Amino acid sequence: MEQKYIYGTEIDVRDYELDAEGIVNNANYLHYLEHTRHEFCKIAGFTFAQMRENGIDPVLRKVEIEYLTPLKSGDTMESFINMERKGPRFIFHQDIFRKSDGQPVVKALVTVVMLKNGKLSKGDEVAEAFHKYL
Amino acid sequence: MEQKYIYGTEIDVRDYELDAEGIVNNANYLHYLEHTRHEFCKIAGFTFAQMRENGIDPVLRKVEIEYLTPLKSGDTMESFINMERKGPRFIFHQDIFRKSDGQPVVKALVTVVMLKNGKLSKGDEVAEAFHKYL
Amino acid sequence: MEQKYIYGTEIDVRDYELDAEGIVNNANYLHYLEHTRHEFCKIAGFTFAQMRENGIDPVLRKVEIEYLTPLKSGDTMESFINMERKGPRFIFHQDIFRKSDGQPVVKALVTVVMLKNGKLSKGDEVAEAFHKYL
Amino acid sequence: MEQKYIYGTEIDVRDYELDAEGIVNNANYLHYLEHTRHEFCKIAGFTFAQMRENGIDPVLRKVEIEYLTPLKSGDTMESFINMERKGPRFIFHQDIFRKSDGQPVVKALVTVVMLKNGKLSKGDEVAEAFHKYL
Repeated sequence: MEQKYIYGTEIDVRDYELDAEGIVNNANYLHYLEHTRHEFCKIAGFTFAQMRENGIDPVLRKVEIEYLTPLKSGDTMESFINMERKGPRFIFHQDIFRKSDGQPVVKALVTVVMLKNGKLSKGDEVAEAFHKYL
Repeated sequence: MEQKYIYGTEIDVRDYELDAEGIVNNANYLHYLEHTRHEFCKIAGFTFAQMRENGIDPVLRKVEIEYLTPLKSGDTMESFINMERKGPRFIFHQDIFRKSDGQPVVKALVTVVMLKNGKLSKGDEVAEAFHKYL
Repeated sequence: MEQKYIYGTEIDVRDYELDAEGIVNNANYLHYLEHTRHEFCKIAGFTFAQMRENGIDPVLRKVEIEYLTPLKSGDTMESFINMERKGPRFIFHQDIFRKSDGQPVVKALVTVVMLKNGKLSKGDEVAEAFHKYL
Repeated sequence: MEQKYIYGTEIDVRDYELDAEGIVNNANYLHYLEHTRHEFCKIAGFTFAQMRENGIDPVLRKVEIEYLTPLKSGDTMESFINMERKGPRFIFHQDIFRKSDGQPVVKALVTVVMLKNGKLSKGDEVAEAFHKYL
């Protein structure tokens, strides 16, 4: 499964992420997706801290997320990522699977643009830094 | 603005919802949207507690959210909702505006289906309860 | 009840704050307490934004919190505050009650110190700004 | 350091746990402490799920937490635990250190009592299950 993706990481459900229905609350998946993107950027060698030092500010424009299987207490997930560039937009294709049985958990498209010194940029510096993955 | 919607509520940003960039973290908007849906259900007369007593379990299937203006410390938002039924799916059109100047903050489509005693249902009971709003 | 306190505010439980036991998760009470302190500072005329502009950084040193009654979905709380100065330490006495019946929910002592340009300060500027309440 | 404790686990800071000051928000440490207790119970062989099946409901009574060093983006913590019984109360001594340099991060005392079928119990079943650690 993993070779289709440019990066993957494991995340454990923490019990405080469950809501009154005993399943992970929907908003926490946006946390998992963000955490995966940040970990990927760290591995790819261009951390959020470095972006900021270069005056670059990644801004979320859109998230489309499908909820397929709810996670519960004790579950571990495998969170995978691919990225694509469409003009100034960087689109992350993110899939999360339940580790125990490979069941798909969420499927998401996340669109990010880059501000440079506060203004919308074409994102060339970021594209350059991630050229191996695009 | 308000007459286009079936329900609206005000929500204040709480400072712990900000992230390191000094703006509300993207996942918190899913909290705001959920809070608005729950408040609406309360007003509409069919609370989540009552649904559960009737064996009905609303399940989130999909969220499409566009981020238009970031909220900051001290901001108040106005969160509006419309609902639509497409077969077994209930689709909430949710818009959040910044109260101070009416600036659009997020625009979201939220798709929910209804489980009845654990199985996907056509949602007729829920449609009945909300018929005034559909 | 209110006259014993220098400030009080109402906070509604939001359903995503519940955990799998159907009660508000323990960590959220620290959010409620922080929110109350920030609202109080706003009312008292010395906001966190203004403190930062003056190079002042309030830092939490200690929280002692007793959990007396769990809050549930639909509950509203009344969150009250008193403050006291002990040398460089500002101690907030914070009590939260359930609005419906006045039942005590949490009782907390929160100790804050003030950094001035990154160094521990005696907090005189802050004490001056809040002298009416000390 | 580790031998003084009955259990320890590593936890990574996730960027969404930071607040506008760029440090982990104070309430998240209660999440870390809870996560550590739950992981310990899992290892010790008496999970929260099993407790509930036996009609046992652990309830938080008190948390005393000192904040010693703020954690930042990229930090990993080591979270350790000891437990003690005082009559019906189980007291967890919990220490968190920054992994990179062993700096103490928080120091906490967490008091838990056990409800049995909704009533305060002496906690003998739980004490029995954890006798190796008490």
